[in-house]
Amino acid sequence: MADERARRRAARAAVRRALREDLAGYGDLTGSVFTGAGVARVIAREAGVLSGIVCLEETAAQVDAALAVEVFVRDGGRFTTGAAVAELRGPLASILSTERTALNFLGRLSGVATLTAAFVAETEGTRARIAATRKTTPGLRALEKQAVVDGGGTPHRFGLFDGAMIKDNHVAAAGGVAAAVERVRGAAAHVHSLEVEVDTLEQLDEALAAGATIVLLDNMDTATVRAATERVAGRALVEVSGRVRLERVRELAEAGVDIISVGALTTRAPWIDLGLDLEV
Amino acid sequence: MADERARRRAARAAVRRALREDLAGYGDLTGSVFTGAGVARVIAREAGVLSGIVCLEETAAQVDAALAVEVFVRDGGRFTTGAAVAELRGPLASILSTERTALNFLGRLSGVATLTAAFVAETEGTRARIAATRKTTPGLRALEKQAVVDGGGTPHRFGLFDGAMIKDNHVAAAGGVAAAVERVRGAAAHVHSLEVEVDTLEQLDEALAAGATIVLLDNMDTATVRAATERVAGRALVEVSGRVRLERVRELAEAGVDIISVGALTTRAPWIDLGLDLEV
Amino acid sequence: MADERARRRAARAAVRRALREDLAGYGDLTGSVFTGAGVARVIAREAGVLSGIVCLEETAAQVDAALAVEVFVRDGGRFTTGAAVAELRGPLASILSTERTALNFLGRLSGVATLTAAFVAETEGTRARIAATRKTTPGLRALEKQAVVDGGGTPHRFGLFDGAMIKDNHVAAAGGVAAAVERVRGAAAHVHSLEVEVDTLEQLDEALAAGATIVLLDNMDTATVRAATERVAGRALVEVSGRVRLERVRELAEAGVDIISVGALTTRAPWIDLGLDLEV
Amino acid sequence: MADERARRRAARAAVRRALREDLAGYGDLTGSVFTGAGVARVIAREAGVLSGIVCLEETAAQVDAALAVEVFVRDGGRFTTGAAVAELRGPLASILSTERTALNFLGRLSGVATLTAAFVAETEGTRARIAATRKTTPGLRALEKQAVVDGGGTPHRFGLFDGAMIKDNHVAAAGGVAAAVERVRGAAAHVHSLEVEVDTLEQLDEALAAGATIVLLDNMDTATVRAATERVAGRALVEVSGRVRLERVRELAEAGVDIISVGALTTRAPWIDLGLDLEV
Amino acid sequence: MADERARRRAARAAVRRALREDLAGYGDLTGSVFTGAGVARVIAREAGVLSGIVCLEETAAQVDAALAVEVFVRDGGRFTTGAAVAELRGPLASILSTERTALNFLGRLSGVATLTAAFVAETEGTRARIAATRKTTPGLRALEKQAVVDGGGTPHRFGLFDGAMIKDNHVAAAGGVAAAVERVRGAAAHVHSLEVEVDTLEQLDEALAAGATIVLLDNMDTATVRAATERVAGRALVEVSGRVRLERVRELAEAGVDIISVGALTTRAPWIDLGLDLEV
Amino acid sequence: MADERARRRAARAAVRRALREDLAGYGDLTGSVFTGAGVARVIAREAGVLSGIVCLEETAAQVDAALAVEVFVRDGGRFTTGAAVAELRGPLASILSTERTALNFLGRLSGVATLTAAFVAETEGTRARIAATRKTTPGLRALEKQAVVDGGGTPHRFGLFDGAMIKDNHVAAAGGVAAAVERVRGAAAHVHSLEVEVDTLEQLDEALAAGATIVLLDNMDTATVRAATERVAGRALVEVSGRVRLERVRELAEAGVDIISVGALTTRAPWIDLGLDLEV
Repeated sequence: MADERARRRAARAAVRRALREDLAGYGDLTGSVFTGAGVARVIAREAGVLSGIVCLEETAAQVDAALAVEVFVRDGGRFTTGAAVAELRGPLASILSTERTALNFLGRLSGVATLTAAFVAETEGTRARIAATRKTTPGLRALEKQAVVDGGGTPHRFGLFDGAMIKDNHVAAAGGVAAAVERVRGAAAHVHSLEVEVDTLEQLDEALAAGATIVLLDNMDTATVRAATERVAGRALVEVSGRVRLERVRELAEAGVDIISVGALTTRAPWIDLGLDLEV
Repeated sequence: MADERARRRAARAAVRRALREDLAGYGDLTGSVFTGAGVARVIAREAGVLSGIVCLEETAAQVDAALAVEVFVRDGGRFTTGAAVAELRGPLASILSTERTALNFLGRLSGVATLTAAFVAETEGTRARIAATRKTTPGLRALEKQAVVDGGGTPHRFGLFDGAMIKDNHVAAAGGVAAAVERVRGAAAHVHSLEVEVDTLEQLDEALAAGATIVLLDNMDTATVRAATERVAGRALVEVSGRVRLERVRELAEAGVDIISVGALTTRAPWIDLGLDLEV
Repeated sequence: MADERARRRAARAAVRRALREDLAGYGDLTGSVFTGAGVARVIAREAGVLSGIVCLEETAAQVDAALAVEVFVRDGGRFTTGAAVAELRGPLASILSTERTALNFLGRLSGVATLTAAFVAETEGTRARIAATRKTTPGLRALEKQAVVDGGGTPHRFGLFDGAMIKDNHVAAAGGVAAAVERVRGAAAHVHSLEVEVDTLEQLDEALAAGATIVLLDNMDTATVRAATERVAGRALVEVSGRVRLERVRELAEAGVDIISVGALTTRAPWIDLGLDLEV
Repeated sequence: MADERARRRAARAAVRRALREDLAGYGDLTGSVFTGAGVARVIAREAGVLSGIVCLEETAAQVDAALAVEVFVRDGGRFTTGAAVAELRGPLASILSTERTALNFLGRLSGVATLTAAFVAETEGTRARIAATRKTTPGLRALEKQAVVDGGGTPHRFGLFDGAMIKDNHVAAAGGVAAAVERVRGAAAHVHSLEVEVDTLEQLDEALAAGATIVLLDNMDTATVRAATERVAGRALVEVSGRVRLERVRELAEAGVDIISVGALTTRAPWIDLGLDLEV
Repeated sequence: MADERARRRAARAAVRRALREDLAGYGDLTGSVFTGAGVARVIAREAGVLSGIVCLEETAAQVDAALAVEVFVRDGGRFTTGAAVAELRGPLASILSTERTALNFLGRLSGVATLTAAFVAETEGTRARIAATRKTTPGLRALEKQAVVDGGGTPHRFGLFDGAMIKDNHVAAAGGVAAAVERVRGAAAHVHSLEVEVDTLEQLDEALAAGATIVLLDNMDTATVRAATERVAGRALVEVSGRVRLERVRELAEAGVDIISVGALTTRAPWIDLGLDLEV
Repeated sequence: MADERARRRAARAAVRRALREDLAGYGDLTGSVFTGAGVARVIAREAGVLSGIVCLEETAAQVDAALAVEVFVRDGGRFTTGAAVAELRGPLASILSTERTALNFLGRLSGVATLTAAFVAETEGTRARIAATRKTTPGLRALEKQAVVDGGGTPHRFGLFDGAMIKDNHVAAAGGVAAAVERVRGAAAHVHSLEVEVDTLEQLDEALAAGATIVLLDNMDTATVRAATERVAGRALVEVSGRVRLERVRELAEAGVDIISVGALTTRAPWIDLGLDLEV
């Protein structure tokens, strides 16, 4: 479950920026001329899992405090084609100015949640959890990490500051896994985890010997993943990554890993198509 | 051609936000412990069209003024798998902290440019130009519009402020095309264009009679698009839109339209996979 | 009609800056010591046309949420000497701290609206509209463009981003009107207008031939303006500019132009004198 | 003399806002297409006193770091019609995008400095200093106060925070001059001055008795001003105010006052007309 | 009395920064999982004088608009060990996320108020007022100056902008007290005070001769302070400073000075220990 | 070692706020009148451990780009009374305006580093590390955490977002240690640690059984701490806290704990007295 207060704060800032992009301080040339009040519904043009409904609420609130929003599907909820996700009620001009900005958030974030849910469904019954990576859209990390959680996944590190992870370039820079671990551990606070990415079983042994509490098996074939998981034998959490696609994720999950991190959740998720239908 | 000074300013702000997401004011637990200098290259893991190189320059500059960036492929340039796009030189710690944020920009924006270029290639030899829509990632509109330009497309409106566009919901609110045009025209400045979305040939006639200078044919089949284009006969610019996919774009272009606007350029573009290889 | 939601947002930001200037984070040394509640009225010390009343509302709201504002004259409304424009009710200290900042906005913006209304009155019965320019006070462009609209004028371009305009320096840079138009057109989106400033009838012909949709006759005498307007014969909108003063504006309007843009609306408008009278 | 480092900081922020207004994140549709380098000069179209040259430097720097600015007239310097004030050298596109924003600052601020200089010239040989008021354009207070200094005037209070001033509404709220002074003095720090506005000689006596160190004679005729000044007899500084116009200022100065504060310096100053001439 | 509206504004900004430090856009990993509502009280673990209660209100409001705060002790109020200062009521998760940030403000600011009150108590019955200095925590100046006022002290200058003070380095730069005063006076507005720091009685004479209205006796022994105060004889306000400790403050006060400025109020005040007790 | 790039970024923002407090956009009334150049040295008036030297560099750079700073003592370095810590060279006015803001940072941060070093010295030869808490000055957390590191300590959690910690109020909210752990673990990412505060040995057993990886012994006497540490027997890291004073810290360290977290490092550290001596 995401921290809903943090989500709202992130939405508030992101919506402010998005409205500045769409209105530029000068306003809506078309919508602003319409007077009177109306009702409009956000309708799903395809099925999916919702994320980012607070962005709709925030957009409406920032466009016009007189707009009321009623939500029918909450974050993490599934919807089918044609379903009404939410309803806007208030000044017509403000409904019209809200439309695109709100839908951009909902379309992108629900796209991430929906793809995550597909990965999660594939791994049902295994111990593996589907995790996001740091490959997030610049400016939307908190909201996209929460979209992954809405889809049933887990957020992983938020950034470079809340956990140490030694990757190939760090190993290269240090001249070896053990040397890299030693350096990082000397600097880390006791509350921060130390994860080590390994490409081979030799590196895995080195990482475990150096005291890694999480190991990341990068780009290994499934047999090697299985062998690695057995070798770890509970001494560390086991994560796998590397261009993981939907077709292969169950195989990896069944190899016994704890975490499967999937860049595609955020780099290859098409937007969910949602529209706004005005009822006049 | 995008305004390169505006692009740099947009990049500066977007990079600042992205680094705040990744560093949170506390820094890089892993990378910061590495001393000494190094060289690293941004390498394409697949072919594409580049966009957003200024984001790499800005990320490096904001992480550490001591980093030098050399660029091998400029925005709009094509690259093949394995190509070196740029080179970073300077403190190892700062190269390591720059990596993910810079690649997130390049991956997303080059994804948009690459998909745009595919659409543009399909329409070669026709008068049709491929245009972006307002379905852009919140916070990245200027950079994504420029990515479409890098791919050979045209940016269309930037937002609700730089051109009037009467869409289905406006028509519904006004009770008809002519009524909607009349209202909007009364409020518009003489420098702002007036585009009208139409669903049928009847609405098209109404829009032309009302004085639209650009008409948008929405979700029409190709035969109707052709008929509509002929009926316009140069009295207005003709734009088409509505879930345009790569397979159908040439057919539309050959129907004689001026502009094909494609939401998919930004809603369905997978990121281009780019990596950073440290040379030690 | 200005976009009222955009106006409020612009006011909010401008008022925040103005209060920071007047209070500097440390507050009002004089007003803050007064306790108890009171009522005060904004009184016009001279006649005029109002603009910026939302700035009064925003100043009051930002100084103290406990202040209530009742508005008697709306933006665009005329008032006479001695008229009550609005009433503030609430904590005395907060009424006192609100006074100067709110009046600075109202005085400046009503000055612009009032001068605009004088120009508009001069052109009554002609087709000509009075337009603002980009000669606006830095930081107040949106509010001043709206003040021009409140006075009966039209806003023209908001900035360099929402319409192309080729002026003398662009022509000089390109080496001629036609060359300049060609360059700019190649880069422009289909929704953005292309206006060309011309100094002579020869340049006018060149601009029309190059496809300008708006021509700006700069600093021409009235006979030449009339000749130019006839030569255009509806092929483009005709705008005139160049140190237009109140005495000459009717003559220009009667020459048949569509738009008269007047820098003086914002560069030579004296503030309207408004005061705050406390009722104790 | 203004604090030049503070002036630069104020300019930096004000220019950033002004460029955001003029470019909106999307850039200059016209100027950006011009390639190559050029030289342009800021030319005075009328005589005046300069203020705000740092705003030209800041605008150029923020538009494009490659622009070089050479300054020929410094703040406070006089220029005649046709004089070259400064020169811009660098990319043509960036010269073109800099023009309007920079001139808006220079035109407004030089207008204030020039009008101030006219008031100062009128009072030459007297002890009176011409002072600004808090009637400044919202968002430009520091720069306008400095423009007054450039014109030979003195800035007065910056805001409500750096000196106490008891005006008519405070007296009304407290029920009398003495009561108002007592309240404010109890709250004031020892470093902050206490000025009292008086309308009559009776109030003047009351203010002096209450310990005011500065008295402000508001809207008195010149004979009363002279009488008041004599009555003060050096026990306090004497300031006069109230719709002071150029025609009357010498008379007031000769009445022996120390300070003449003039709202018109900022509320009635027409902009100085400055242009940018491109040399190709 | 501090300006309560300014205090609230300062608190709002400071709390926003503090919550960003504590939540980093990603939220509270621990508190956010708790559902349901609760009540909690801020309890004093030691006696003191309160300051900054608005920071508690602001933190609660920014964490969650659903939190209600009831205040039992106001700024400037004394409390004993075990006293309940305020009560929070609302969602458990939000009470838990509010705790540390709110207590950090209250602990620091009440520490300053409490130490100030101790100094003020020592000087009871004398004319001397205890004043803060500019040695305040970066980012908290307004709130700490107000904490000094809550403790019974006076704020002194807010910064370099609201009063001139010539200190040792200025004297050194000018080559003498008189030279320094002359320079500064030429530039100062009539509303700004001119204080001069002196180390010796000779410098004191020089300062008085030059027209200082406030003299600051720096690091003098008490006998010299007494001599200096007598020599001033009411011609200027007398302030003393220089590592003033609680043990010596009465002696200084009895020497007849007007102001005793004490850096220790902000540089040596331990936080007051306050806790949050959840009632379940 | 702190992340020096993050430290510089934090300093940049904090210095910007501090200068706004001290200059308020209007500048330095006193210092700005001094012309010519000079040299000044930051001199320690007492011994200590330095922290925050980058704040001096940033203050100088933001006041005036023409100031040069030479640093003699780096962060973490010890200095004795009278030592020169750094030297400023450049315009006199800018040296004078830099003084107080820079010293406020250095005084506070070096105070924290110096007190930390005293705690660290007491625990020499033991396994215990001295850790900061979240009791940091609002707005200065990153810099104060780094000051603790400069003093030889470890930063602990940065905030609520980078590690879960179950404290007394969480246990109360959940109705027991095990219940609280279960809730938090279900929501946590695999990279985030889970620390549990316990008051008794029974709670300690419960926490270990629930799978805590770090236990925090709160306010226990030393014998109980020793017993608890033995009972943990390496199954978790052991931290102690609770009004730890310098006199008791060695005893706790010798009880075998891993971490001693000390709120006093930031709540009870007096500033180090540093001055600026101008050499004329």
